[in-house]
Amino acid sequence: MKFDSIRNQAYEANMALEEADLVVATFGNASALDSDHGVFAIKPSGVPYRDLSPELMVIVDIEGKKIDGDMNPSSDTLTHAVLYKEWPGIGGVVHTHSTYATAWAQAQMAIPIYGTTHADHLTVDIPCAPVMTAEMIKGQYEYMTGYQIVEYMAAMNYSAREVEMILVAGHAPFTWGKTVKKAVYNSLICEEIAKMAVLTQQIRPNAPRLDNNLIDKHYQRKHGAGAYYGQDMEK
Amino acid sequence: MKFDSIRNQAYEANMALEEADLVVATFGNASALDSDHGVFAIKPSGVPYRDLSPELMVIVDIEGKKIDGDMNPSSDTLTHAVLYKEWPGIGGVVHTHSTYATAWAQAQMAIPIYGTTHADHLTVDIPCAPVMTAEMIKGQYEYMTGYQIVEYMAAMNYSAREVEMILVAGHAPFTWGKTVKKAVYNSLICEEIAKMAVLTQQIRPNAPRLDNNLIDKHYQRKHGAGAYYGQDMEK
Amino acid sequence: MKFDSIRNQAYEANMALEEADLVVATFGNASALDSDHGVFAIKPSGVPYRDLSPELMVIVDIEGKKIDGDMNPSSDTLTHAVLYKEWPGIGGVVHTHSTYATAWAQAQMAIPIYGTTHADHLTVDIPCAPVMTAEMIKGQYEYMTGYQIVEYMAAMNYSAREVEMILVAGHAPFTWGKTVKKAVYNSLICEEIAKMAVLTQQIRPNAPRLDNNLIDKHYQRKHGAGAYYGQDMEK
Amino acid sequence: MKFDSIRNQAYEANMALEEADLVVATFGNASALDSDHGVFAIKPSGVPYRDLSPELMVIVDIEGKKIDGDMNPSSDTLTHAVLYKEWPGIGGVVHTHSTYATAWAQAQMAIPIYGTTHADHLTVDIPCAPVMTAEMIKGQYEYMTGYQIVEYMAAMNYSAREVEMILVAGHAPFTWGKTVKKAVYNSLICEEIAKMAVLTQQIRPNAPRLDNNLIDKHYQRKHGAGAYYGQDMEK
Repeated sequence: MKFDSIRNQAYEANMALEEADLVVATFGNASALDSDHGVFAIKPSGVPYRDLSPELMVIVDIEGKKIDGDMNPSSDTLTHAVLYKEWPGIGGVVHTHSTYATAWAQAQMAIPIYGTTHADHLTVDIPCAPVMTAEMIKGQYEYMTGYQIVEYMAAMNYSAREVEMILVAGHAPFTWGKTVKKAVYNSLICEEIAKMAVLTQQIRPNAPRLDNNLIDKHYQRKHGAGAYYGQDMEK
Repeated sequence: MKFDSIRNQAYEANMALEEADLVVATFGNASALDSDHGVFAIKPSGVPYRDLSPELMVIVDIEGKKIDGDMNPSSDTLTHAVLYKEWPGIGGVVHTHSTYATAWAQAQMAIPIYGTTHADHLTVDIPCAPVMTAEMIKGQYEYMTGYQIVEYMAAMNYSAREVEMILVAGHAPFTWGKTVKKAVYNSLICEEIAKMAVLTQQIRPNAPRLDNNLIDKHYQRKHGAGAYYGQDMEK
Repeated sequence: MKFDSIRNQAYEANMALEEADLVVATFGNASALDSDHGVFAIKPSGVPYRDLSPELMVIVDIEGKKIDGDMNPSSDTLTHAVLYKEWPGIGGVVHTHSTYATAWAQAQMAIPIYGTTHADHLTVDIPCAPVMTAEMIKGQYEYMTGYQIVEYMAAMNYSAREVEMILVAGHAPFTWGKTVKKAVYNSLICEEIAKMAVLTQQIRPNAPRLDNNLIDKHYQRKHGAGAYYGQDMEK
Repeated sequence: MKFDSIRNQAYEANMALEEADLVVATFGNASALDSDHGVFAIKPSGVPYRDLSPELMVIVDIEGKKIDGDMNPSSDTLTHAVLYKEWPGIGGVVHTHSTYATAWAQAQMAIPIYGTTHADHLTVDIPCAPVMTAEMIKGQYEYMTGYQIVEYMAAMNYSAREVEMILVAGHAPFTWGKTVKKAVYNSLICEEIAKMAVLTQQIRPNAPRLDNNLIDKHYQRKHGAGAYYGQDMEK
């Protein structure tokens, strides 16, 4: 069946979110892109994880229009659509309200880079896009959430290839990646980094930012030209 | 058998509380209303969750009088009875001592609205009814706990339809809903919001309250006239 | 077989400690008394929980002398022995290094009574016996730990019937009860109260102590002359 | 098959790390030494725990050269190699990014000895080796991480036999032991001590260091000449 592959990928990704305790109740959603057809599969809105199946995933085009499926797509669908449209290289998007990352988003603060766990994945603080303006919120809210993310990444001069996670102030984290599996992985890592950072500040308020040499070393050994981490996994 | 339906609902709800780690030992109780007959089914007092069965649920009328069942009903039965009596629209009530929500109750403070996870469910801080007076405590304590809740909701001008959770200072949370399933869901959400809020304050003492536009937007997209969250779930 | 009953009780209790996540590695020990014969069954020292069986429980008299069993009894055996000897009414003792209760013991502070979860079980702060003197530590350490507990309870004028849990400063909690099952329950409750109290202080430093009327009401409804909590459980 | 024993030991140890929730995703690695042949078995780099098997463990000599195996060894292999080379008595090494211990490493602080849980295992604060110099980082990084550990232990005058765990500032914990099973145990204990210490400080900032008499007593009863903890386990 057409779109079977992305339906399966999106299904597996959504289930992995629950398995990893990144979602409560029906919160959270993952989508997988079929870049050849310019469509993606996404979780239906408000359905408990235990009731999901690959067939229930909704197919939507990158303008956010439903193409196939019986159910309403996630209410956050337009945010996913904008990220796929603006960042051609990505193949998956994940949104959760995972506890610690969401607490940082509620505090409206970027997550400082304190250790190599963080530097293994990105070389900058996990960014926090500011609260949207009243106009953006009152208009096409989810669509504008996508642009809030895209524009803040651009304003910070961050590439979506090198920084694969962001917080939206007052809301929660969004992550992405070459595949939806990688986006799920990034959600897990974002939550773990968020938890370690809260604890670090509790142990030592005003803990120092990680040394730049360590940041570069850890990022390069996993992602640089001469990377030597892993087997032949995606780098 | 008469009352089978509410016995089953109450049983499922009580078991769901334990499954979701919202209760320790024999703490916590859930009840389900049969509004046609003006009675509700509630957990027996002090029985471990693993020993419960639908048959053990006790049937009580909304004055709190036992109608059917071999065991003593929960010691909090009169609190449930008052809420059913005073708020005709609700169909289920849940009481837990879940860790984070109870910590806020012990701190005798409302839980500030810091993010959209909160705003998805209510537009105000999760209220905290003050410690009861000596007279109320020494009289019919559980009955007066019900009235403490009802009167504080009225004093704050909150409707039981729009605000489905409250803390009682020095004690713990109570939640309710159109069904007991929804009340259980509200207990889970209350605990998660409570945890996120503690963490938010740890990251940033005096973190700002969530922007009003975001509060309205998130609540309206789930509960407003033009709500577009979910499929055809209760809104 | 002689002592089968207390061996089984002690075994079940030790396994329940691990099941409830109250112990890490081989930490923690539970014992059950046979008051007719003046002996108790206790966990062997340093054996992982998954390798335990009822037969491995060691039988010791209340002077702390091994009566039966192939293995060495827990290194904390003399502490248990002292409590049984000095407090004739108790039938079980439990010692854990559960995380939150141990943190309070390490902070060398009693756990303030902040809520009804606490008041349901005792009407005073969970006491913290001071660090033992150099002489006590250098002598028969575990034996003196028992006396440190007994003497501090006496100095505070607490009865072992009404206060069934204590912290030993710099060390960890000890609990007891009419049965070892009740002592395990008390360990679980002590840990939960300890966690709620840390969180309460984080939310509101110098949070107020629970109102005396609430303390009395909650304790009396579970343990007083006219108690109405539970069915016919031990009160 | 040659090296079967250490492959099995390393496999079991790596799986035990995941079982104990000490690792997220592919983080963490355990290795087991064959001291007769001067080689050790270590986890392959970047492979998820669920895909591991004894056969996939990589055999490396203590200079860090791969001897046998199809996959790339852990990127931290040279750190393990240095510890085996410099400390002839050890038989296993473990590295994790466990949450609480890593937070202390990120805070760049030693973990103060606050209680007997800590003193049961070592008599000093869990040391934290300082952030490495730019030169060390830019050179053979993992190799120099090993020397950073060895040299800091020497500078503090700590023996690898008595202190079996360390934090590397900005990075995470490393542990070791006579066997890899003991090294895994030490990782678990290090994490638990780290968590208790954060909580102790939250309850009481500037909590007092544990009394020296208690430190000595607890360490000696487990590890001293007249140790009386356990059966005939390794002391």
